Amino acid sequence: MTGTATSEPPVILFDPWPRSADLIFSPAMRTRFEALGTVVGLAESAGGKLPAEFVDAHLARAVAIVGQTDMDAQRIARAPHLRAIINVEGNFTQNIDYAACFARGIQVLGIAPVFAQPVAEMALGMAIDLARGITRGDQLMRAGQEQYGLAGNRSAFTLHGQTMGLIGCGNLGRALIPLLAPFRPRLLIHDPWLPDSLVRELGGEPASLEQVLGQPRIIFALAGVTEQNQGWLDRDRLATIRGDAIFLLMSRAGIVDFDALVDLVAQGRFRAATDVFPVEPAPADLRARQVDGLLLSSHRAGGLASALAAIGEMVVDDLGLILADLPPQRLQPARRETVGRWRNSPGRSYAPGTRL
Amino acid sequence: MTGTATSEPPVILFDPWPRSADLIFSPAMRTRFEALGTVVGLAESAGGKLPAEFVDAHLARAVAIVGQTDMDAQRIARAPHLRAIINVEGNFTQNIDYAACFARGIQVLGIAPVFAQPVAEMALGMAIDLARGITRGDQLMRAGQEQYGLAGNRSAFTLHGQTMGLIGCGNLGRALIPLLAPFRPRLLIHDPWLPDSLVRELGGEPASLEQVLGQPRIIFALAGVTEQNQGWLDRDRLATIRGDAIFLLMSRAGIVDFDALVDLVAQGRFRAATDVFPVEPAPADLRARQVDGLLLSSHRAGGLASALAAIGEMVVDDLGLILADLPPQRLQPARRETVGRWRNSPGRSYAPGTRL
Amino acid sequence: MTGTATSEPPVILFDPWPRSADLIFSPAMRTRFEALGTVVGLAESAGGKLPAEFVDAHLARAVAIVGQTDMDAQRIARAPHLRAIINVEGNFTQNIDYAACFARGIQVLGIAPVFAQPVAEMALGMAIDLARGITRGDQLMRAGQEQYGLAGNRSAFTLHGQTMGLIGCGNLGRALIPLLAPFRPRLLIHDPWLPDSLVRELGGEPASLEQVLGQPRIIFALAGVTEQNQGWLDRDRLATIRGDAIFLLMSRAGIVDFDALVDLVAQGRFRAATDVFPVEPAPADLRARQVDGLLLSSHRAGGLASALAAIGEMVVDDLGLILADLPPQRLQPARRETVGRWRNSPGRSYAPGTRL
Amino acid sequence: MTGTATSEPPVILFDPWPRSADLIFSPAMRTRFEALGTVVGLAESAGGKLPAEFVDAHLARAVAIVGQTDMDAQRIARAPHLRAIINVEGNFTQNIDYAACFARGIQVLGIAPVFAQPVAEMALGMAIDLARGITRGDQLMRAGQEQYGLAGNRSAFTLHGQTMGLIGCGNLGRALIPLLAPFRPRLLIHDPWLPDSLVRELGGEPASLEQVLGQPRIIFALAGVTEQNQGWLDRDRLATIRGDAIFLLMSRAGIVDFDALVDLVAQGRFRAATDVFPVEPAPADLRARQVDGLLLSSHRAGGLASALAAIGEMVVDDLGLILADLPPQRLQPARRETVGRWRNSPGRSYAPGTRL
Repeated sequence: MTGTATSEPPVILFDPWPRSADLIFSPAMRTRFEALGTVVGLAESAGGKLPAEFVDAHLARAVAIVGQTDMDAQRIARAPHLRAIINVEGNFTQNIDYAACFARGIQVLGIAPVFAQPVAEMALGMAIDLARGITRGDQLMRAGQEQYGLAGNRSAFTLHGQTMGLIGCGNLGRALIPLLAPFRPRLLIHDPWLPDSLVRELGGEPASLEQVLGQPRIIFALAGVTEQNQGWLDRDRLATIRGDAIFLLMSRAGIVDFDALVDLVAQGRFRAATDVFPVEPAPADLRARQVDGLLLSSHRAGGLASALAAIGEMVVDDLGLILADLPPQRLQPARRETVGRWRNSPGRSYAPGTRL
Repeated sequence: MTGTATSEPPVILFDPWPRSADLIFSPAMRTRFEALGTVVGLAESAGGKLPAEFVDAHLARAVAIVGQTDMDAQRIARAPHLRAIINVEGNFTQNIDYAACFARGIQVLGIAPVFAQPVAEMALGMAIDLARGITRGDQLMRAGQEQYGLAGNRSAFTLHGQTMGLIGCGNLGRALIPLLAPFRPRLLIHDPWLPDSLVRELGGEPASLEQVLGQPRIIFALAGVTEQNQGWLDRDRLATIRGDAIFLLMSRAGIVDFDALVDLVAQGRFRAATDVFPVEPAPADLRARQVDGLLLSSHRAGGLASALAAIGEMVVDDLGLILADLPPQRLQPARRETVGRWRNSPGRSYAPGTRL
Repeated sequence: MTGTATSEPPVILFDPWPRSADLIFSPAMRTRFEALGTVVGLAESAGGKLPAEFVDAHLARAVAIVGQTDMDAQRIARAPHLRAIINVEGNFTQNIDYAACFARGIQVLGIAPVFAQPVAEMALGMAIDLARGITRGDQLMRAGQEQYGLAGNRSAFTLHGQTMGLIGCGNLGRALIPLLAPFRPRLLIHDPWLPDSLVRELGGEPASLEQVLGQPRIIFALAGVTEQNQGWLDRDRLATIRGDAIFLLMSRAGIVDFDALVDLVAQGRFRAATDVFPVEPAPADLRARQVDGLLLSSHRAGGLASALAAIGEMVVDDLGLILADLPPQRLQPARRETVGRWRNSPGRSYAPGTRL
Repeated sequence: MTGTATSEPPVILFDPWPRSADLIFSPAMRTRFEALGTVVGLAESAGGKLPAEFVDAHLARAVAIVGQTDMDAQRIARAPHLRAIINVEGNFTQNIDYAACFARGIQVLGIAPVFAQPVAEMALGMAIDLARGITRGDQLMRAGQEQYGLAGNRSAFTLHGQTMGLIGCGNLGRALIPLLAPFRPRLLIHDPWLPDSLVRELGGEPASLEQVLGQPRIIFALAGVTEQNQGWLDRDRLATIRGDAIFLLMSRAGIVDFDALVDLVAQGRFRAATDVFPVEPAPADLRARQVDGLLLSSHRAGGLASALAAIGEMVVDDLGLILADLPPQRLQPARRETVGRWRNSPGRSYAPGTRL
């Protein structure tokens, strides 16, 4: 019952661009990967997406695709043994006929969980930075303008015991909550996809968007972009943030009115940090680059070498389970209801392998 | 059995300089403080240490001193009802005849625990900053030199699962361990004052100074200065730190050869952060101000307004217990064996109330 | 886009027997449930499964079934708007054409997570009982044969720091691990459906069946019965358990050779506890009833009123999400690969509503 | 500066009865102990307290006493080098002139912390037992009267999310809190020796005695007996316990009106468990032995072999520190304010080494 009609080993189509085998596999993991079946595309994928003819030539025997291959209904129909498509880029995009996959029982899986831990760590680090003035304090010492002790801490505050807000509470929020727990926060969580009971189980209090912006001292924006929440945090909403609060944009620029955010911080309305920008690489003359009170990070929160290497392990683990007729355990399944809504465009113009 | 021979309320001598009543007491806490007895010195202490004649005039009836009053054997002898001396500055200094206190059963208590949480938080924030390149990344974006994703993370690493070392594990180390726990570190702990069994109970592995410097990816220097450990981390020892490690000096500059530390970081041997300096305020031309790879903080890790306000609560709580013939619970008692060894000089030349 | 072609409210078919509306819904939750659509079957289901004709009459308009209705391919075909089948009994049984559901995108969901917490709590309680001799100690005191202190503790041991084994690590194991964590165990986990990496992420060490039986001081058998593991823990395997160990059977009697287990405990080979029996109610003359060293519980670990009430909340939460075109978050989805393998027969002969 | 005037090794007087060297030392630990100095009394102490003349003969050179030797002011005066008295029985009793010790700076230390973990574990086990009916369920199955599932759980409840009360929060309470934490309780804590702020830091809410008895579903009585709290929980107070609550007496029988407790449980007013009795061994005809709803344990919560072995480690660790002029870290110091108040009489009539 392995899904192939013959005794030939299963074919695994490898089409990881803009990732590459070297990025996502340690040598040991690559060995395990190649032992799962006949992997095709390893060489061919090094320089970009697999050529269409290459893909088409292997569909008939493919049991799995590891990569972001365009898979419309026709291609799916020509892959009768296909059991899984594993996106290794990080965003489900609209280049797959998901409905056709679900009807056929083809599992579509993604790697978002690998980034949850490193992004959560960065979110905590940037929160402490803003709350305690770490980057600012270093700047002042280099400029010879520092003050010591309490005098240097006039706008500093501790995370301990603060009210914190999470906007969105998926993989990232759930990786962040344990890092925040030792600070014993009061956690307000706004996530329209989650029932209140689950929010409470996660240790939070269900909150409206108004509450999660207006009440906390620390606000983490963690939601991915969907067709529904683009520009969600607009100027009026951002203006309700407390004057003594810090706001951290860790997921996607698309969920905020970025210009409004920069304006408000430039006016000293609150302090903020961002790991993401409306266009990446950010233009050289982006105003945000010169605004005080804004901590800047060039979309580096997730893309650690160790996170990328974890992709390979997840792929090998779950593909092994699938080929043994067991449920995958580590990758994140595309959900029928939401996979069509995502608008987290992958990065565009910079070099392969360098993006989140 | 309150220790005063008459029915008059106990006298509490308040001599907090360089702290002040306003810094350490919230209004509610000050009210509770004044209800504990007849507090003398509140007005007189505003501008500096209490005048000697003022102190001498009240010793005969004092049951407690809240402050850093010089108390030699003679003065102690003239305070027959004295039951507690509560240092609110933060360092036990050699201006008290501790032996005379212990012989009389006078409790000497300090406030070091209030700083443990904020300094631990800062230590974690600076560790994430160095590991992930937060301050450096902000600098690069402001200079238009940033790289994105993996390309920008060549020297970045996650705290998750790393070997970390703690040099010293008193109040500060014990406040830091729970903040590190969610990152599931392997913890090497070197503290010559602790038995191995206690180190294990704290979740660490007992380690020699060599091990705790040479093995971890992240090293936290948390020990206070004693007569024995001045300059302990000398050039040779610092040179054993791994090239891919980060070193964080969070306690006192006196435990390291500071010049050697700056040299090694300037040579790119490892990255480091420091919250403390051999002389504070640091000279304008201090070389450390211009060294890459060194994250600088002007002794701001502990001195938050909220931490100072916690002093008042601790004082009121414990003085209340002592006057009710119960053991104090929150302040830290001077230990007979070690109180004479401390060499954490309090800051010198800057304005009252601004120091750690 | 609610899945019904007309503007009529969705029909929800309620067929919960052997559960009942009163058991699984608090009044408030029932109100929320009825507000989700037109619920049919509430009255009809009180005395047993819904009559076939009743079911058939409502399939055409049903968007969801809450219950264990037999759903073969024909019935599924006659329910064009059906989007979810929510089993509220606790075991996926082979009375549904799961393949037909998956092909149509009909979600099949179960309530197993509600029992994880109470069963885990009971497992911990029974483990402490066996390790420390609680039930035995009470018996001895009632018989006037107790010994005090150390003399009464000759075969007692603490959970703290012990090696513990989990056989199976699904919902139940993952609810148990946090309860065990404060005892700082070494955790060996055997679960053939999980990759090693996930076992480590859960805080355990991957172990073979041999290791998980032979090494620990405390063994928790937590696996459900599948077509593959019936009688898995046979006499030879049970005989490898350490003489100073305790064995706790918390999931299903079917995974062990129950007679062998009773024999070995009766011989004093090790102590054990069981919440489950090959036939329930257990025969009056079941030998296990009189064996020393065996702690007996009449399948009471999961069936708390509070757990049953949690079913209603989960159903309402997730059905609400599904009808709003969002992914369910709390119920457990049947997994295509495994749903056909389960052999956890629901209880048979005792009164409705009384079973796990 | 070792406290002895000569170069002879320090003399350690070993007088552990009713403990013994074999009970408290593993072989390795005994080796470490004997390496600390010249230990006298090892052989002599095997059968009982050291003879007075033996003690007197060694006082002049003793730097430490490990045991419960009577030490009045005269003996203390004759031990000029004495630096520590380490009680290894478990209760500070009134056979020492503590004031004379404190005046001389002689540390008096006790081993209570070793029992905190095992007693806390037993408290949790007995709480789950009462809440879930473990012992009762076993009795019913053995009698063939069990009911299954929900029918068998009519008076059962989960610990999860309950309000719990702690009466007393010293070593034992602080060992129990982490074991309870995964159940996410609301914790009411009554301890007249602790400030509210510390109770909150421990994760609890400060509560009056009335609140801590009347509100929780689970009440843990954890306070030792002092001159002030004997019979504290009298009939009227016990009568305020909720009808659906469970009450666990884990510390000392002396803090409750034991007859009233038995009466109330016998009347079905609430369920209870006790590890302690007014007289131990309990009389054969003690009424408590036959009361339903009362879970009985013969003072076995603390006295595990592993706990006793931990005594030796603590003694060796701390005596080693003291002899190196460092503060002890693991034993519990007698507190000047309270040491005279304890009335935890050690057990009386049963064999040496068998008691808590």
